[in-house]
Amino acid sequence: MKSDLDRLMAQRDLQALVAVGDETYSAPRDYLTNGAHVTGGLVIKKRGEAAVMVVNPMEVEEAAASGLTVYSYHDFGWADLVKAAGGDRSKANVQMWGRALHAEEVPSGKIGIYGTSDVNVYIDMVAELNQLDGYSFVGERGLTVFDEAYITKDADERARLEAAAAGTSATLRATWDYIASQRAEGDTVVKADGSPLTIGDVKRFVRRTLLDHDLEDTDMIFAQGRDAGFPHSRGQHAQPLRLGQSIIFDLFPREVGGGYYHDVTRTWCIGYAPAEVQKTYETVMHAFEIAMESYEEPGQPTYTMQEAVLDYYESLGHPTQRSQPSTMNGYVHTLGHGVGLNIHERPSLSHVQRTDKFQVGNALTIEPGLYYPDEGFGVRVEDTVFIDDDGHMHTLTDFRKDLVITLRG
Amino acid sequence: MKSDLDRLMAQRDLQALVAVGDETYSAPRDYLTNGAHVTGGLVIKKRGEAAVMVVNPMEVEEAAASGLTVYSYHDFGWADLVKAAGGDRSKANVQMWGRALHAEEVPSGKIGIYGTSDVNVYIDMVAELNQLDGYSFVGERGLTVFDEAYITKDADERARLEAAAAGTSATLRATWDYIASQRAEGDTVVKADGSPLTIGDVKRFVRRTLLDHDLEDTDMIFAQGRDAGFPHSRGQHAQPLRLGQSIIFDLFPREVGGGYYHDVTRTWCIGYAPAEVQKTYETVMHAFEIAMESYEEPGQPTYTMQEAVLDYYESLGHPTQRSQPSTMNGYVHTLGHGVGLNIHERPSLSHVQRTDKFQVGNALTIEPGLYYPDEGFGVRVEDTVFIDDDGHMHTLTDFRKDLVITLRG
Repeated sequence: MKSDLDRLMAQRDLQALVAVGDETYSAPRDYLTNGAHVTGGLVIKKRGEAAVMVVNPMEVEEAAASGLTVYSYHDFGWADLVKAAGGDRSKANVQMWGRALHAEEVPSGKIGIYGTSDVNVYIDMVAELNQLDGYSFVGERGLTVFDEAYITKDADERARLEAAAAGTSATLRATWDYIASQRAEGDTVVKADGSPLTIGDVKRFVRRTLLDHDLEDTDMIFAQGRDAGFPHSRGQHAQPLRLGQSIIFDLFPREVGGGYYHDVTRTWCIGYAPAEVQKTYETVMHAFEIAMESYEEPGQPTYTMQEAVLDYYESLGHPTQRSQPSTMNGYVHTLGHGVGLNIHERPSLSHVQRTDKFQVGNALTIEPGLYYPDEGFGVRVEDTVFIDDDGHMHTLTDFRKDLVITLRG
Repeated sequence: MKSDLDRLMAQRDLQALVAVGDETYSAPRDYLTNGAHVTGGLVIKKRGEAAVMVVNPMEVEEAAASGLTVYSYHDFGWADLVKAAGGDRSKANVQMWGRALHAEEVPSGKIGIYGTSDVNVYIDMVAELNQLDGYSFVGERGLTVFDEAYITKDADERARLEAAAAGTSATLRATWDYIASQRAEGDTVVKADGSPLTIGDVKRFVRRTLLDHDLEDTDMIFAQGRDAGFPHSRGQHAQPLRLGQSIIFDLFPREVGGGYYHDVTRTWCIGYAPAEVQKTYETVMHAFEIAMESYEEPGQPTYTMQEAVLDYYESLGHPTQRSQPSTMNGYVHTLGHGVGLNIHERPSLSHVQRTDKFQVGNALTIEPGLYYPDEGFGVRVEDTVFIDDDGHMHTLTDFRKDLVITLRG
């Protein structure tokens, strides 16, 4: 968690972290500033000290709302730096970084750069930054200092995860009711005016409902029939909902403007479920139970949960990524992943990457699925769960996992 | 525009562009793939050829919807590469890039990396990529190959900009009506139930209305009173709307899921405008007209428009960034910027950076403002305009610029 950052920095011999970002949401910047709404500048966290912000003068007020110490570009002579650089703001920016690091008395040594922004800019900028006296600027792949800290959530983060979970669950409930309130003509679901209810209609309803809970969609999946057979197919906007098709509804919204995510999937059939879909749904539901029951305590390797599900699916003859690593049928993805300020965090539940262990403060998805695109369907069921201070794993998602939506219209 | 990319690559001696991205929207990836909904992998554009995509097997169907040639990680032996790298997916990824570039017969030489993603990953990855036989990987700052292409929009892009403009204008109209339909108690605007109408209420209404037009908010500004005096203050969620305060409403949504933006600002006073705000509003409106009238034809340097506004403001005694470069009062920002897949693109209208010229196909904002935070107000008026094939500049924004909203309730 956040309080681990200094220790994690010391392990990497980092004197400071610099978190960058632009108009795009940047999780490391949010993490260090508690969600300050800024669109540029930098955040400096010297090891052992609280973070400070350096922002465009126009954003000083927004930055100050974070409670951190805030510097304006003017405090480091921005206008003069631009002049000295012959109008080249990129060059001026490098000098400003140097002044800011010296002002914070960051000792000579390694400085890690993190954040979501234009990668081309920072690839190019690093060479020039490295000419600043005394500092060596580095990136990081794999399990970064932020990734490690994100793995366990503190009490504030847990409260925000729970709020996101409640709003997402309420949206699922409203969406179920919205669909159930329609009627069918032949095998097509239609609205009151007789026009088909499309996937686009449903997505628009979902996005609006999320906003009522101060959550924003981040490209949900609502995929029907054959599309549901491909785990990441988003679904076709203009396609009408049909009776008896498997629909994978994977919703992973976050706090408006960027923040904590919730991640949940339900598989729905409207009117009735064909025998093959019903049978597969029951298998996936059983896999979900096996996964939950395989959890014993913090410290347990996460791959044990994935292996319990792999064993079960393989015992029934389903192809898996273990039995056939490039299969597009059967169980084609990993059981789950951490969730926080990023939709995909550690721990991983992979059986290949066998390093991660369950820990108190983990928020993670459990999402077994089975996919048969050539047979025209897919099934996935997913909750986001949390490991509390007692080491118990409990679900944050509060909505039933039923398969069949009966139309009331 | 897009058709300029090969020429711009040749100028930079780039053999190929690689556009990257993750779950976050990445404009270069969108630009090359016409908005494919993928969350990883890479897009390779060899000079002189159409782009191709390399994606996670789960995303092959979504990628194929782009119309581009699509490779799955499996086509490059992903599982074997991970195995050979001892489970290190970062290392395997570097090898996959090499295989993909060779499969596309990209000649030896410079490869540019672009896109929005974790900068730490790519800063770290470049050193390893540069060990691939024959290639040298580079980033780019300043006016990049994509930035240059973005400056002028083709017919498809113009149509999308116009659709975004129409939806945004309709949302402004609906928001005006929403506020006008309320009533006042004392100097507080209240809803039908007598509770105060807050900035949070208005923002929620705006976000929902945008969705009806398939647009999404990207952190709008709705800032009242003193907050309006700081150009980038977002506004306080819980603050009730008050009569006689200047409200800066800056709305810059984009197509849902990422895409083309529209950018517009209006300044509103509810009930009445204090004399000082009214006078400042008229000055800003006049500055807007001066800006529009200063445009003559393509080829004209953009700074001429900014200078016309600077001259006008300074003639009235307002501080500006030219007369007092670090002023926080008066005219504290630049007159405008290009708009497209990014909210801030070139051309710049800066008087400092004097390189840009107006061109056919430009979409840009014109947004004069005046800010007096210590006097408790700010005023900004902004449209997004387009320079059409005849060289005429016309506004894309279709909503009145009136200052005072009279309550009907």
